[in-house]
Amino acid sequence: MRIAVLGTGMVGRALSGKLAALGHETWLGTRDVAASLANTEAARDGTGTFAEWHERNPQVQVATFAEAAGNAEVVFNATAGTASLDALKLSGEENLAGKLLVDVANPLDFSKGMPPSLSVCNTDSLAEQIQGAFPAAKVVKTLNTVTAHLMVDAGQLAQGEHTMFVAGNDGDAKATVTEILREGFGWKNVLDLGDLTAARGMEMYLPLWLSMMMQGVKSPMFNVAVVT
Amino acid sequence: MRIAVLGTGMVGRALSGKLAALGHETWLGTRDVAASLANTEAARDGTGTFAEWHERNPQVQVATFAEAAGNAEVVFNATAGTASLDALKLSGEENLAGKLLVDVANPLDFSKGMPPSLSVCNTDSLAEQIQGAFPAAKVVKTLNTVTAHLMVDAGQLAQGEHTMFVAGNDGDAKATVTEILREGFGWKNVLDLGDLTAARGMEMYLPLWLSMMMQGVKSPMFNVAVVT
Repeated sequence: MRIAVLGTGMVGRALSGKLAALGHETWLGTRDVAASLANTEAARDGTGTFAEWHERNPQVQVATFAEAAGNAEVVFNATAGTASLDALKLSGEENLAGKLLVDVANPLDFSKGMPPSLSVCNTDSLAEQIQGAFPAAKVVKTLNTVTAHLMVDAGQLAQGEHTMFVAGNDGDAKATVTEILREGFGWKNVLDLGDLTAARGMEMYLPLWLSMMMQGVKSPMFNVAVVT
Repeated sequence: MRIAVLGTGMVGRALSGKLAALGHETWLGTRDVAASLANTEAARDGTGTFAEWHERNPQVQVATFAEAAGNAEVVFNATAGTASLDALKLSGEENLAGKLLVDVANPLDFSKGMPPSLSVCNTDSLAEQIQGAFPAAKVVKTLNTVTAHLMVDAGQLAQGEHTMFVAGNDGDAKATVTEILREGFGWKNVLDLGDLTAARGMEMYLPLWLSMMMQGVKSPMFNVAVVT
């Protein structure tokens, strides 16, 4: 497939690198290509600056948000949650219309210090706001409940025997995403939570995830398995 | 121990019945004893009216909130989350001072229909509001992430190999609660999430729990196991 991943951070790098390795024609979209390649800040996951990462991943084509989305059949939103609506507007409504839009972002607000709060929650969610702003896109929420490297390689923990959630209003779009999760990323247990209102719960899980990461587990390399 | 459980609903019944069966001197606290015993509404869990339940559980002593809390060393808040602060005020600040106060409630607001929203979240939690209103109590948040019958018998699922969270500002209080969870209720995996701010995440997990209960699992008899 032709896939765009929006966002040059740890999540965008992990997703685009893996999707390209799986043989997909993969674009990584950013606001300003030259500025991203000139950015001297190293990512916290050890992948270095964006230019260093791209040198090791030349199969991922770097483009503007609009070019990346325009070229793609499937678009992953891997931008920071509080910047996602802006990034998607820059991608162009016409470049998202009719397409599968996989939202993996979390609306974490770090402006008031740690731990972050959510900029939207409870009676709304980022995924629903994105669907509302781009009604012709087929938004599916998934992958926001695990750290970047686990998203694309579930087998790193317990042979992949733990749970990934999906939510969205379009059944076919969810089926396509579920296939990518299973066949591409190694997720054996994909749990369909229904329509996009379930994204509220998936995003509101983040404070618990952060507590586990900082206190209970003291590592981002964990997930939950639903036990019945 | 002498234990008070506040609340006559499914959670209060499950907790008080189990604690009494474990040999603890157990009071169940309610706003109006006569009104509770006269209530003709049957609980959704099949335990019948409160009077029917109490007939089968005569070892649990029914009392007012204040009498129950006054008699106890440990108090469980099993009232509806949106009514908890009122119920605890009726219990009397002097009856809670210095005591372990185990908060298992969720601030679910059903007034706007299903799914419920949370009446407090994100930058605050019910548990923190309770701690703020009763600063001399030792508040520990736990058990709010599973259905009532699972709270007191973790072995009903996967031989107890799934996760219960605890959070609170007092280490000794958390240790006492953890012992009740392990020895009394069969929880093998108790994960300490740190101070009471972690109650935000534990309470904000409820929308995800509700989505799983209604759509993903279609039963309340499930839990998550943290996989590392």
